[in-house]
Amino acid sequence: MHVTTELRVRYAETDQMGVVYYANFFVWFEIGRVELLRSFGSSYRQLETEYDCMIPVIDARCRYRAPARYDDEIQIETWPALVRESVIKFAYQVWRKALEGEERKLLAEGETVHVICDPQMNRKHLPEQYMTALRSMVAGG
Amino acid sequence: MHVTTELRVRYAETDQMGVVYYANFFVWFEIGRVELLRSFGSSYRQLETEYDCMIPVIDARCRYRAPARYDDEIQIETWPALVRESVIKFAYQVWRKALEGEERKLLAEGETVHVICDPQMNRKHLPEQYMTALRSMVAGG
Amino acid sequence: MHVTTELRVRYAETDQMGVVYYANFFVWFEIGRVELLRSFGSSYRQLETEYDCMIPVIDARCRYRAPARYDDEIQIETWPALVRESVIKFAYQVWRKALEGEERKLLAEGETVHVICDPQMNRKHLPEQYMTALRSMVAGG
Amino acid sequence: MHVTTELRVRYAETDQMGVVYYANFFVWFEIGRVELLRSFGSSYRQLETEYDCMIPVIDARCRYRAPARYDDEIQIETWPALVRESVIKFAYQVWRKALEGEERKLLAEGETVHVICDPQMNRKHLPEQYMTALRSMVAGG
Repeated sequence: MHVTTELRVRYAETDQMGVVYYANFFVWFEIGRVELLRSFGSSYRQLETEYDCMIPVIDARCRYRAPARYDDEIQIETWPALVRESVIKFAYQVWRKALEGEERKLLAEGETVHVICDPQMNRKHLPEQYMTALRSMVAGG
Repeated sequence: MHVTTELRVRYAETDQMGVVYYANFFVWFEIGRVELLRSFGSSYRQLETEYDCMIPVIDARCRYRAPARYDDEIQIETWPALVRESVIKFAYQVWRKALEGEERKLLAEGETVHVICDPQMNRKHLPEQYMTALRSMVAGG
Repeated sequence: MHVTTELRVRYAETDQMGVVYYANFFVWFEIGRVELLRSFGSSYRQLETEYDCMIPVIDARCRYRAPARYDDEIQIETWPALVRESVIKFAYQVWRKALEGEERKLLAEGETVHVICDPQMNRKHLPEQYMTALRSMVAGG
Repeated sequence: MHVTTELRVRYAETDQMGVVYYANFFVWFEIGRVELLRSFGSSYRQLETEYDCMIPVIDARCRYRAPARYDDEIQIETWPALVRESVIKFAYQVWRKALEGEERKLLAEGETVHVICDPQMNRKHLPEQYMTALRSMVAGG
Protein backbone atom coordinates (compact mmCIF):
# COMPACT_ATOMS: atom_id res chain seq x y z
CA MET A 1 0.00 0.00 0.00
CA HIS A 2 1.19 3.49 -0.86
CA VAL A 3 0.47 6.57 1.22
CA THR A 4 0.17 9.72 -0.85
CA THR A 5 1.08 13.14 0.52
CA GLU A 6 0.66 16.41 -1.34
CA LEU A 7 2.64 19.61 -1.13
CA ARG A 8 3.33 22.67 -3.24
CA VAL A 9 6.89 23.69 -4.15
CA ARG A 10 8.13 26.65 -2.06
CA TYR A 11 10.23 29.47 -3.47
CA ALA A 12 12.81 28.66 -0.79
CA GLU A 13 13.17 25.18 -2.30
CA THR A 14 14.30 26.39 -5.73
CA ASP A 15 17.84 27.30 -6.72
CA GLN A 16 19.26 29.53 -9.45
CA MET A 17 18.90 26.75 -12.04
CA GLY A 18 15.18 27.52 -11.66
CA VAL A 19 14.36 24.09 -10.27
CA VAL A 20 14.07 22.49 -6.85
CA TYR A 21 17.49 22.04 -5.24
CA TYR A 22 18.35 18.35 -5.20
CA ALA A 23 18.76 17.96 -1.42
CA ASN A 24 15.16 19.07 -0.87
CA PHE A 25 13.83 15.80 -2.29
CA PHE A 26 15.15 14.16 0.88
CA VAL A 27 13.13 16.65 2.95
CA TRP A 28 10.08 15.58 0.93
CA PHE A 29 10.89 11.90 1.55
CA GLU A 30 10.80 12.69 5.28
CA ILE A 31 7.37 14.29 4.87
CA GLY A 32 6.23 11.16 3.07
CA ARG A 33 7.36 8.74 5.77
CA VAL A 34 5.89 10.93 8.54
CA GLU A 35 2.51 10.80 6.79
CA LEU A 36 2.85 7.07 6.32
CA LEU A 37 3.21 6.65 10.09
CA ARG A 38 0.29 9.01 10.66
CA SER A 39 -1.85 6.99 8.24
CA PHE A 40 -2.11 4.14 10.73
CA GLY A 41 -3.15 6.40 13.56
CA SER A 42 0.27 6.97 15.01
CA SER A 43 2.92 9.61 14.59
CA TYR A 44 6.66 9.98 14.50
CA ARG A 45 6.37 12.47 17.35
CA GLN A 46 4.74 9.76 19.53
CA LEU A 47 7.45 7.31 18.57
CA GLU A 48 9.99 9.78 19.97
CA THR A 49 8.12 10.97 23.05
CA GLU A 50 6.18 7.88 24.15
CA TYR A 51 8.38 5.02 23.00
CA ASP A 52 11.82 6.68 23.19
CA CYS A 53 12.46 5.54 19.64
CA MET A 54 14.55 7.43 17.14
CA ILE A 55 14.77 6.23 13.56
CA PRO A 56 17.95 7.78 12.16
CA VAL A 57 18.69 7.15 8.52
CA ILE A 58 21.73 5.07 7.56
CA ASP A 59 21.34 5.12 3.78
CA ALA A 60 19.50 7.53 1.48
CA ARG A 61 19.25 7.56 -2.27
CA CYS A 62 17.35 9.51 -4.89
CA ARG A 63 17.21 9.12 -8.68
CA TYR A 64 16.06 12.27 -10.44
CA ARG A 65 13.90 11.89 -13.57
CA ALA A 66 12.62 15.40 -14.26
CA PRO A 67 12.90 18.75 -12.49
CA ALA A 68 10.34 20.09 -10.02
CA ARG A 69 9.60 23.78 -10.35
CA TYR A 70 8.31 26.56 -8.14
CA ASP A 71 4.61 26.30 -7.32
CA ASP A 72 4.29 22.80 -8.80
CA GLU A 73 1.83 20.57 -7.01
CA ILE A 74 3.72 17.51 -5.86
CA GLN A 75 2.55 14.07 -4.76
CA ILE A 76 4.85 11.90 -2.68
CA GLU A 77 4.03 8.21 -2.58
CA THR A 78 5.63 6.32 0.27
CA TRP A 79 5.60 2.69 1.25
CA PRO A 80 7.62 0.37 3.47
CA ALA A 81 9.83 -1.74 1.23
CA LEU A 82 11.31 -3.83 4.03
CA VAL A 83 10.50 -4.17 7.75
CA ARG A 84 12.80 -5.89 10.24
CA GLU A 85 12.78 -5.63 14.04
CA SER A 86 15.27 -2.79 14.07
CA VAL A 87 15.59 -1.85 10.40
CA ILE A 88 13.04 -0.26 8.07
CA LYS A 89 13.41 0.63 4.43
CA PHE A 90 11.01 3.15 2.93
CA ALA A 91 10.58 3.67 -0.79
CA TYR A 92 9.32 6.86 -2.42
CA GLN A 93 8.06 8.22 -5.70
CA VAL A 94 7.73 11.95 -6.30
CA TRP A 95 5.15 12.95 -8.92
CA ARG A 96 4.04 16.25 -10.41
CA LYS A 97 0.25 16.28 -10.35
CA ALA A 98 -1.53 15.97 -13.66
CA LEU A 99 -2.38 19.27 -15.31
CA GLU A 100 -5.53 19.41 -17.43
CA GLY A 101 -5.27 17.04 -20.37
CA GLU A 102 -1.97 15.61 -19.19
CA GLU A 103 -0.86 12.65 -17.16
CA ARG A 104 0.99 13.07 -13.92
CA LYS A 105 4.76 12.93 -14.31
CA LEU A 106 7.31 10.98 -12.29
CA LEU A 107 10.01 13.38 -11.04
CA ALA A 108 12.09 11.19 -8.74
CA GLU A 109 12.33 7.85 -6.99
CA GLY A 110 14.27 6.91 -3.91
CA GLU A 111 14.77 4.89 -0.78
CA THR A 112 15.87 5.51 2.79
CA VAL A 113 17.04 2.86 5.25
CA HIS A 114 16.58 3.49 8.98
CA VAL A 115 17.63 1.80 12.20
CA ILE A 116 15.58 1.92 15.38
CA CYS A 117 17.48 3.43 18.32
CA ASP A 118 16.95 4.79 21.81
CA PRO A 119 17.95 8.42 22.44
CA GLN A 120 21.49 7.23 23.30
CA MET A 121 21.65 5.71 19.81
CA ASN A 122 21.64 2.05 20.94
CA ARG A 123 19.70 -0.31 18.70
CA LYS A 124 16.27 -1.34 19.90
CA HIS A 125 13.15 -2.95 18.46
CA LEU A 126 10.31 -1.06 16.88
CA PRO A 127 7.20 -1.19 19.11
CA GLU A 128 5.02 -4.19 18.22
CA GLN A 129 2.03 -2.17 16.95
CA TYR A 130 4.23 -0.22 14.51
CA MET A 131 5.83 -3.39 13.22
CA THR A 132 2.46 -5.04 12.65
CA ALA A 133 1.06 -2.03 10.85
CA LEU A 134 4.13 -1.58 8.65
CA ARG A 135 4.27 -5.27 7.79
CA SER A 136 0.64 -5.30 6.77
CA MET A 137 1.44 -2.47 4.35
CA VAL A 138 4.26 -4.50 2.82
CA ALA A 139 2.09 -7.58 2.52
CA GLY A 140 -0.93 -5.64 1.33
CA GLY A 141 0.99 -4.51 -1.74
CA MET B 1 34.54 45.98 18.27
CA HIS B 2 33.36 44.03 15.24
CA VAL B 3 34.08 40.36 14.65
CA THR B 4 34.40 39.50 10.96
CA THR B 5 33.47 36.07 9.61
CA GLU B 6 33.90 34.97 6.02
CA LEU B 7 31.92 32.51 3.98
CA ARG B 8 31.22 31.72 0.34
CA VAL B 9 27.66 31.59 -1.02
CA ARG B 10 26.44 28.01 -1.53
CA TYR B 11 24.34 26.93 -4.49
CA ALA B 12 21.75 25.68 -1.99
CA GLU B 13 21.39 29.24 -0.69
CA THR B 14 20.27 30.71 -4.01
CA ASP B 15 16.73 30.74 -5.35
CA GLN B 16 15.31 30.98 -8.86
CA MET B 17 15.65 34.78 -8.85
CA GLY B 18 19.38 33.97 -9.10
CA VAL B 19 20.19 35.52 -5.74
CA VAL B 20 20.49 34.34 -2.15
CA TYR B 21 17.07 33.53 -0.68
CA TYR B 22 16.20 36.19 1.90
CA ALA B 23 15.79 33.88 4.91
CA ASN B 24 19.40 32.71 4.55
CA PHE B 25 20.73 36.06 5.77
CA PHE B 26 19.41 35.07 9.19
CA VAL B 27 21.43 31.84 8.98
CA TRP B 28 24.48 34.01 8.25
CA PHE B 29 23.67 36.24 11.22
CA GLU B 30 23.76 33.12 13.40
CA ILE B 31 27.19 32.25 12.00
CA GLY B 32 28.33 35.78 12.84
CA ARG B 33 27.21 35.65 16.47
CA VAL B 34 28.68 32.17 16.97
CA GLU B 35 32.05 33.45 15.77
CA LEU B 36 31.73 36.50 18.01
CA LEU B 37 31.36 34.21 21.03
CA ARG B 38 34.28 32.11 19.83
CA SER B 39 36.41 35.24 19.46
CA PHE B 40 36.67 35.58 23.23
CA GLY B 41 37.70 31.99 23.74
CA SER B 42 34.28 30.59 24.39
CA SER B 43 31.62 28.99 22.29
CA TYR B 44 27.90 28.76 21.96
CA ARG B 45 28.19 25.00 22.32
CA GLN B 46 29.82 25.46 25.76
CA LEU B 47 27.11 27.90 26.75
CA GLU B 48 24.57 25.13 26.06
CA THR B 49 26.44 22.15 27.48
CA GLU B 50 28.40 23.65 30.43
CA TYR B 51 26.17 26.51 31.55
CA ASP B 52 22.74 25.16 30.54
CA CYS B 53 22.10 28.45 28.74
CA MET B 54 20.00 28.79 25.65
CA ILE B 55 19.79 32.11 23.86
CA PRO B 56 16.62 31.95 21.77
CA VAL B 57 15.87 34.91 19.55
CA ILE B 58 12.83 37.09 20.30
CA ASP B 59 13.21 39.64 17.51
CA ALA B 60 15.07 39.48 14.19
CA ARG B 61 15.31 42.03 11.43
CA CYS B 62 17.20 42.41 8.18
CA ARG B 63 17.32 45.30 5.70
CA TYR B 64 18.49 44.21 2.26
CA ARG B 65 20.64 46.64 0.22
CA ALA B 66 21.92 44.57 -2.69
CA PRO B 67 21.65 40.92 -3.68
CA ALA B 68 24.21 38.26 -2.81
CA ARG B 69 24.95 35.80 -5.59
CA TYR B 70 26.23 32.26 -5.90
CA ASP B 71 29.95 31.88 -5.12
CA ASP B 72 30.27 35.46 -3.78
CA GLU B 73 32.74 35.85 -0.95
CA ILE B 74 30.84 37.28 1.98
CA GLN B 75 32.00 39.04 5.13
CA ILE B 76 29.70 39.17 8.14
CA GLU B 77 30.52 41.79 10.75
CA THR B 78 28.93 41.19 14.12
CA TRP B 79 28.96 43.17 17.34
CA PRO B 80 26.93 43.32 20.54
CA ALA B 81 24.72 46.39 20.37
CA LEU B 82 23.24 45.98 23.85
CA VAL B 83 24.07 43.68 26.77
CA ARG B 84 21.75 43.21 29.78
CA GLU B 85 21.78 40.40 32.36
CA SER B 86 19.28 38.33 30.44
CA VAL B 87 18.97 40.16 27.11
CA ILE B 88 21.52 40.62 24.32
CA LYS B 89 21.13 42.46 21.05
CA PHE B 90 23.55 41.67 18.25
CA ALA B 91 23.98 43.85 15.18
CA TYR B 92 25.23 42.66 11.80
CA GLN B 93 26.48 43.92 8.48
CA VAL B 94 26.82 41.62 5.48
CA TRP B 95 29.39 42.68 2.87
CA ARG B 96 30.51 41.31 -0.47
CA LYS B 97 34.30 41.24 -0.45
CA ALA B 98 36.09 43.75 -2.65
CA LEU B 99 36.93 42.48 -6.11
CA GLU B 100 40.07 43.86 -7.75
CA GLY B 101 39.83 47.62 -8.23
CA GLU B 102 36.52 47.83 -6.41
CA GLU B 103 35.41 48.59 -2.91
CA ARG B 104 33.55 46.04 -0.84
CA LYS B 105 29.78 46.40 -1.04
CA LEU B 106 27.23 46.43 1.78
CA LEU B 107 24.54 43.83 1.05
CA ALA B 108 22.47 43.86 4.23
CA GLU B 109 22.21 45.06 7.79
CA GLY B 110 20.27 43.63 10.68
CA GLU B 111 19.78 42.95 14.34
CA THR B 112 18.68 40.04 16.52
CA VAL B 113 17.52 40.27 20.13
CA HIS B 114 17.97 37.26 22.42
CA VAL B 115 16.94 36.27 25.91
CA ILE B 116 18.98 33.99 28.15
CA CYS B 117 17.07 30.89 29.26
CA ASP B 118 17.61 27.52 30.84
CA PRO B 119 16.62 24.44 28.80
CA GLN B 120 13.08 24.70 30.27
CA MET B 121 12.92 28.18 28.77
CA ASN B 122 12.91 30.08 32.09
CA ARG B 123 14.85 33.33 32.09
CA LYS B 124 18.29 33.27 33.68
CA HIS B 125 21.41 35.43 33.71
CA LEU B 126 24.24 35.15 31.26
CA PRO B 127 27.36 33.70 32.97
CA GLU B 128 29.54 36.50 34.38
CA GLN B 129 32.51 35.90 32.08
CA TYR B 130 30.33 36.17 28.96
CA MET B 131 28.72 39.35 30.21
CA THR B 132 32.10 40.95 30.93
CA ALA B 133 33.51 40.01 27.55
CA LEU B 134 30.43 41.18 25.64
CA ARG B 135 30.28 44.47 27.57
CA SER B 136 33.91 45.20 26.82
CA MET B 137 33.12 44.78 23.13
CA VAL B 138 30.27 47.29 23.40
CA ALA B 139 32.47 49.75 25.32
CA GLY B 140 35.49 49.16 23.10
CA GLY B 141 33.59 50.47 20.07
CA MET C 1 -8.82 40.86 5.07
CA HIS C 2 -6.53 38.08 6.22
CA VAL C 3 -5.63 35.05 4.15
CA THR C 4 -5.00 31.96 6.25
CA THR C 5 -2.61 29.22 5.16
CA GLU C 6 -1.99 26.00 7.02
CA LEU C 7 1.10 23.85 7.24
CA ARG C 8 2.60 21.23 9.52
CA VAL C 9 6.09 21.66 10.99
CA ARG C 10 8.67 19.50 9.22
CA TYR C 11 11.47 17.68 11.03
CA ALA C 12 13.92 19.52 8.79
CA GLU C 13 12.64 22.81 10.20
CA THR C 14 13.61 22.02 13.81
CA ASP C 15 17.02 22.57 15.36
CA GLN C 16 18.74 20.99 18.34
CA MET C 17 16.94 23.31 20.76
CA GLY C 18 13.92 21.14 19.83
CA VAL C 19 12.04 24.03 18.23
CA VAL C 20 11.68 25.50 14.75
CA TYR C 21 14.86 27.31 13.68
CA TYR C 22 14.20 31.05 13.64
CA ALA C 23 15.01 31.68 9.97
CA ASN C 24 12.26 29.26 8.90
CA PHE C 25 9.55 31.70 10.00
CA PHE C 26 10.60 33.82 7.03
CA VAL C 27 10.08 30.82 4.74
CA TRP C 28 6.57 30.54 6.22
CA PHE C 29 5.95 34.24 5.62
CA GLU C 30 6.76 33.61 1.95
CA ILE C 31 4.21 30.79 1.87
CA GLY C 32 1.67 33.16 3.38
CA ARG C 33 2.17 35.89 0.80
CA VAL C 34 2.13 33.41 -2.09
CA GLU C 35 -1.25 32.13 -0.89
CA LEU C 36 -2.50 35.68 -0.48
CA LEU C 37 -1.75 36.33 -4.17
CA ARG C 38 -3.36 33.04 -5.12
CA SER C 39 -6.49 33.98 -3.12
CA PHE C 40 -7.44 36.57 -5.72
CA GLY C 41 -7.05 34.19 -8.61
CA SER C 42 -3.51 35.04 -9.48
CA SER C 43 -0.12 33.66 -8.57
CA TYR C 44 3.38 34.79 -7.89
CA ARG C 45 4.54 32.49 -10.67
CA GLN C 46 2.34 34.39 -13.15
CA LEU C 47 3.70 37.67 -11.87
CA GLU C 48 7.19 36.44 -12.78
CA THR C 49 6.44 34.72 -16.06
CA GLU C 50 3.63 36.84 -17.56
CA TYR C 51 4.34 40.29 -16.18
CA ASP C 52 8.14 40.12 -15.77
CA CYS C 53 7.70 41.30 -12.19
CA MET C 54 9.96 40.30 -9.34
CA ILE C 55 9.11 41.36 -5.81
CA PRO C 56 12.39 41.14 -3.88
CA VAL C 57 12.26 41.89 -0.18
CA ILE C 58 14.03 44.98 1.17
CA ASP C 59 13.11 44.66 4.84
CA ALA C 60 12.02 41.66 6.90
CA ARG C 61 11.22 41.40 10.57
CA CYS C 62 9.87 38.76 12.94
CA ARG C 63 8.99 38.96 16.64
CA TYR C 64 8.92 35.54 18.28
CA ARG C 65 6.32 34.95 21.03
CA ALA C 66 6.43 31.20 21.63
CA PRO C 67 8.29 28.30 20.02
CA ALA C 68 6.87 26.15 17.23
CA ARG C 69 7.60 22.44 17.56
CA TYR C 70 7.88 19.46 15.26
CA ASP C 71 4.54 18.26 13.85
CA ASP C 72 2.64 21.32 15.17
CA GLU C 73 -0.20 22.46 12.94
CA ILE C 74 0.50 26.04 12.00
CA GLN C 75 -1.74 28.80 10.64
CA ILE C 76 -0.17 31.74 8.86
CA GLU C 77 -2.35 34.81 8.52
CA THR C 78 -1.21 37.27 5.89
CA TRP C 79 -2.52 40.63 4.80
CA PRO C 80 -1.25 43.63 2.84
CA ALA C 81 -0.42 46.37 5.35
CA LEU C 82 0.54 48.96 2.74
CA VAL C 83 0.25 49.07 -1.07
CA ARG C 84 2.05 51.63 -3.24
CA GLU C 85 2.74 51.50 -6.98
CA SER C 86 6.11 49.89 -6.52
CA VAL C 87 6.19 49.02 -2.82
CA ILE C 88 4.14 46.47 -0.86
CA LYS C 89 4.26 45.68 2.82
CA PHE C 90 2.84 42.37 4.00
CA ALA C 91 2.07 41.61 7.64
CA TYR C 92 1.93 38.12 9.14
CA GLN C 93 0.83 36.28 12.23
CA VAL C 94 1.89 32.71 12.88
CA TRP C 95 -0.44 30.69 15.10
CA ARG C 96 -0.41 27.18 16.50
CA LYS C 97 -3.82 25.66 15.86
CA ALA C 98 -6.07 25.12 18.84
CA LEU C 99 -5.81 21.69 20.43
CA GLU C 100 -8.96 20.27 22.03
CA GLY C 101 -10.10 22.46 24.91
CA GLU C 102 -7.48 25.10 24.22
CA GLU C 103 -7.33 28.32 22.30
CA ARG C 104 -4.97 28.76 19.40
CA LYS C 105 -1.66 30.37 20.36
CA LEU C 106 0.20 33.23 18.71
CA LEU C 107 3.77 32.13 17.96
CA ALA C 108 5.15 35.04 15.97
CA GLU C 109 4.33 38.25 14.15
CA GLY C 110 6.21 39.97 11.39
CA GLU C 111 6.35 42.14 8.32
CA THR C 112 8.15 42.11 4.98
CA VAL C 113 8.56 45.09 2.64
CA HIS C 114 8.97 44.46 -1.09
CA VAL C 115 9.76 46.51 -4.16
CA ILE C 116 8.44 45.71 -7.62
CA CYS C 117 11.22 45.17 -10.18
CA ASP C 118 11.82 43.84 -13.65
CA PRO C 119 14.24 40.90 -14.00
CA GLN C 120 17.12 43.40 -14.35
CA MET C 121 16.14 44.76 -10.94
CA ASN C 122 14.88 48.14 -12.15
CA ARG C 123 11.84 49.49 -10.33
CA LYS C 124 8.50 49.12 -12.09
CA HIS C 125 4.82 49.33 -11.19
CA LEU C 126 2.75 46.43 -10.00
CA PRO C 127 0.22 45.40 -12.70
CA GLU C 128 -3.07 47.27 -12.26
CA GLN C 129 -5.18 44.21 -11.41
CA TYR C 130 -2.82 43.19 -8.60
CA MET C 131 -2.82 46.70 -7.18
CA THR C 132 -6.60 46.88 -7.21
CA ALA C 133 -6.99 43.51 -5.53
CA LEU C 134 -4.37 44.22 -2.88
CA ARG C 135 -5.81 47.65 -2.12
CA SER C 136 -9.28 46.22 -1.66
CA MET C 137 -7.84 43.84 0.92
CA VAL C 138 -6.29 46.75 2.81
CA ALA C 139 -9.54 48.73 2.67
CA GLY C 140 -11.68 45.70 3.43
CA GLY C 141 -10.01 45.36 6.85
CA MET D 1 43.39 12.77 -6.11
CA HIS D 2 41.08 14.00 -3.38
CA VAL D 3 40.19 17.63 -2.80
CA THR D 4 39.57 18.44 0.86
CA THR D 5 37.16 21.18 1.94
CA GLU D 6 36.56 22.24 5.51
CA LEU D 7 33.48 23.66 7.15
CA ARG D 8 31.98 24.01 10.59
CA VAL D 9 28.49 22.68 11.38
CA ARG D 10 25.89 25.47 11.59
CA TYR D 11 23.10 25.55 14.15
CA ALA D 12 20.65 25.75 11.24
CA GLU D 13 21.93 22.38 10.01
CA THR D 14 20.97 20.47 13.18
CA ASP D 15 17.56 19.01 13.96
CA GLN D 16 15.83 18.12 17.19
CA MET D 17 17.64 14.77 17.36
CA GLY D 18 20.66 16.99 18.16
CA VAL D 19 22.54 15.98 15.02
CA VAL D 20 22.90 17.30 11.48
CA TYR D 21 19.71 16.73 9.46
CA TYR D 22 20.36 14.03 6.88
CA ALA D 23 19.55 16.09 3.78
CA ASN D 24 22.30 18.57 4.66
CA PHE D 25 25.02 16.05 3.77
CA PHE D 26 23.96 16.56 0.15
CA VAL D 27 24.50 20.30 0.56
CA TRP D 28 28.00 19.49 1.81
CA PHE D 29 28.61 17.20 -1.16
CA GLU D 30 27.79 20.18 -3.40
CA ILE D 31 30.35 22.30 -1.51
CA GLY D 32 32.90 19.54 -2.06
CA ARG D 33 32.39 19.31 -5.80
CA VAL D 34 32.44 23.10 -6.20
CA GLU D 35 35.82 23.22 -4.45
CA LEU D 36 37.05 20.35 -6.60
CA LEU D 37 36.30 22.41 -9.73
CA ARG D 38 37.92 25.46 -8.16
CA SER D 39 41.05 23.40 -7.36
CA PHE D 40 42.00 23.28 -11.03
CA GLY D 41 41.61 27.02 -11.47
CA SER D 42 38.07 26.98 -12.72
CA SER D 43 34.70 27.37 -11.10
CA TYR D 44 31.19 26.09 -11.37
CA ARG D 45 30.02 29.68 -11.81
CA GLN D 46 32.23 29.99 -14.93
CA LEU D 47 30.88 26.72 -16.24
CA GLU D 48 27.38 28.23 -16.05
CA THR D 49 28.12 31.75 -17.27
CA GLU D 50 30.94 31.24 -19.82
CA TYR D 51 30.23 27.77 -21.17
CA ASP D 52 26.44 27.62 -20.74
CA CYS D 53 26.86 24.30 -18.96
CA MET D 54 24.61 23.08 -16.21
CA ILE D 55 25.44 19.87 -14.38
CA PRO D 56 22.17 18.71 -12.81
CA VAL D 57 22.29 15.63 -10.64
CA ILE D 58 20.51 12.47 -11.76
CA ASP D 59 21.44 10.17 -8.87
CA ALA D 60 22.54 10.95 -5.31
CA ARG D 61 23.33 8.60 -2.47
CA CYS D 62 24.68 8.89 1.05
CA ARG D 63 25.56 6.21 3.60
CA TYR D 64 25.64 7.57 7.15
CA ARG D 65 28.24 6.10 9.56
CA ALA D 66 28.15 8.44 12.56
CA PRO D 67 26.30 11.65 13.38
CA ALA D 68 27.71 15.13 12.83
CA ARG D 69 26.98 17.60 15.61
CA TYR D 70 26.70 21.34 16.00
CA ASP D 71 30.04 23.18 15.79
CA ASP D 72 31.94 20.07 14.64
CA GLU D 73 34.77 20.77 12.23
CA ILE D 74 34.07 18.80 9.10
CA GLN D 75 36.30 17.74 6.21
CA ILE D 76 34.73 16.81 2.90
CA GLU D 77 36.91 14.80 0.54
CA THR D 78 35.77 14.83 -3.05
CA TRP D 79 37.08 13.12 -6.15
CA PRO D 80 35.80 12.29 -9.63
CA ALA D 81 34.97 8.59 -9.69
CA LEU D 82 34.01 8.48 -13.37
CA VAL D 83 34.33 11.01 -16.22
CA ARG D 84 32.51 10.63 -19.55
CA GLU D 85 31.82 13.29 -22.18
CA SER D 86 28.45 14.17 -20.73
CA VAL D 87 28.36 12.25 -17.44
CA ILE D 88 30.41 12.76 -14.27
CA LYS D 89 30.28 10.81 -11.06
CA PHE D 90 31.72 12.40 -7.95
CA ALA D 91 32.48 10.46 -4.77
CA TYR D 92 32.63 11.96 -1.28
CA GLN D 93 33.74 11.19 2.23
CA VAL D 94 32.67 13.34 5.16
CA TRP D 95 35.02 13.29 8.17
CA ARG D 96 34.98 14.88 11.60
CA LYS D 97 38.39 16.43 12.16
CA ALA D 98 40.66 14.77 14.69
CA LEU D 99 40.38 16.16 18.21
CA GLU D 100 43.53 16.08 20.34
CA GLY D 101 44.69 12.54 20.94
CA GLU D 102 42.09 11.08 18.61
CA GLU D 103 41.91 10.05 15.00
CA ARG D 104 39.54 11.72 12.60
CA LYS D 105 36.24 9.90 12.21
CA LEU D 106 34.36 8.95 9.03
CA LEU D 107 30.80 10.27 9.26
CA ALA D 108 29.42 9.54 5.81
CA GLU D 109 30.23 8.43 2.28
CA GLY D 110 28.36 9.07 -0.91
CA GLU D 111 28.20 9.63 -4.63
CA THR D 112 26.40 11.92 -7.04
CA VAL D 113 26.01 11.36 -10.78
CA HIS D 114 25.59 14.39 -13.06
CA VAL D 115 24.80 15.01 -16.70
CA ILE D 116 26.12 17.96 -18.67
CA CYS D 117 23.36 20.12 -20.17
CA ASP D 118 22.75 23.46 -21.75
CA PRO D 119 20.33 25.84 -19.98
CA GLN D 120 17.44 24.25 -21.97
CA MET D 121 18.44 20.93 -20.42
CA ASN D 122 19.70 19.30 -23.64
CA ARG D 123 22.73 17.06 -23.23
CA LYS D 124 26.06 18.53 -24.26
CA HIS D 125 29.75 17.77 -23.73
CA LEU D 126 31.82 19.06 -20.89
CA PRO D 127 34.35 21.66 -22.16
CA GLU D 128 37.64 20.00 -23.12
CA GLN D 129 39.74 21.64 -20.41
CA TYR D 130 37.39 20.44 -17.66
CA MET D 131 37.36 16.93 -19.03
CA THR D 132 41.16 16.82 -19.18
CA ALA D 133 41.55 18.12 -15.65
CA LEU D 134 38.93 15.78 -14.21
CA ARG D 135 40.38 12.76 -16.02
CA SER D 136 43.85 13.49 -14.71
CA MET D 137 42.40 13.43 -11.18
CA VAL D 138 40.87 10.03 -11.81
CA ALA D 139 44.10 8.69 -13.29
CA GLY D 140 46.27 10.35 -10.65
CA GLY D 141 44.61 8.26 -7.96
